[in-house]
Amino acid sequence: MDAYQTILSLRSVRQFDLNRPIAEETLYQILQAGRMSGSSKDSQPWWFIVIRDRERLQTVAQTGDYAQHVAGAALAIAIVFDPQFYRGEFDSGRAAQNMMLAAWNDGIGSCLASMHHEADCKAVLGVPAELRLQHIISFGYPRSVEQGLPVVPKRARKPLEEIVMQERWSK
Amino acid sequence: MDAYQTILSLRSVRQFDLNRPIAEETLYQILQAGRMSGSSKDSQPWWFIVIRDRERLQTVAQTGDYAQHVAGAALAIAIVFDPQFYRGEFDSGRAAQNMMLAAWNDGIGSCLASMHHEADCKAVLGVPAELRLQHIISFGYPRSVEQGLPVVPKRARKPLEEIVMQERWSK
Repeated sequence: MDAYQTILSLRSVRQFDLNRPIAEETLYQILQAGRMSGSSKDSQPWWFIVIRDRERLQTVAQTGDYAQHVAGAALAIAIVFDPQFYRGEFDSGRAAQNMMLAAWNDGIGSCLASMHHEADCKAVLGVPAELRLQHIISFGYPRSVEQGLPVVPKRARKPLEEIVMQERWSK
Repeated sequence: MDAYQTILSLRSVRQFDLNRPIAEETLYQILQAGRMSGSSKDSQPWWFIVIRDRERLQTVAQTGDYAQHVAGAALAIAIVFDPQFYRGEFDSGRAAQNMMLAAWNDGIGSCLASMHHEADCKAVLGVPAELRLQHIISFGYPRSVEQGLPVVPKRARKPLEEIVMQERWSK
């Protein structure tokens, strides 16, 4: 799919068709998209934990306030980053976007979950205390055809005029 | 361009062909890509300041340690976000990635600059003290043909095995 159409049509998919597993080759592309993301001074401050075990998905889903979609994902990827690296959080956002777009380009939906109970989440996955785990991304083919349509959804977004300024801050 | 190819071939472009201005329609698409990014609870914590004035580009370039490419950009976009919003920094990274990919999809190069002297940068652009301005993105057509080739560059990235784990942290 054209990159601009992929970007505009990406939306959160929370219900997944578990009869359609994600092929290893497709997972590889998703991980490659994360790996090849740019980062400040090329620090690559991230690690990606691929979770497929149903019980683990269910357990980890309980450590975010709105993370129930993780329990029913075909697989999930936890993004771990080292806060010692400059701009690690920002750069993790870039990697997350790359992975979700690479997935959507192949018809695979995704949804970001914030892990509000981060210490609990890290305990479930054995992540060292000094690292951050703010987000887990659910992946899977959309359960309904409608969710999978590569059309620009009607989403509530602030109008461009409200968020774009010319030359200087002018709010 | 296919989204996966766009993602893999994106690289930092720091030298721009100032004889090729960016069309208004293309700038609109870049801004749309930022605007339509997902964010935590759809908070849309961002504002985008488009900078084209050469003198302002040169002044603002001095407020980042490695931001000289901003001085020679066709235009630059400053990303302002409100730190009061949950995950504002992470979500700004997602919006930045969307904008850079949308640009690259049309052959326009970009480079992220960290604004290390953030207070000075905000002063130049009149941004309120309580908001964050961590990054400015330079945009422009690449000066050399080589920089514009949509091929996968030879970049030093950690191997996948080093950053990907299965089911649990295992480093």
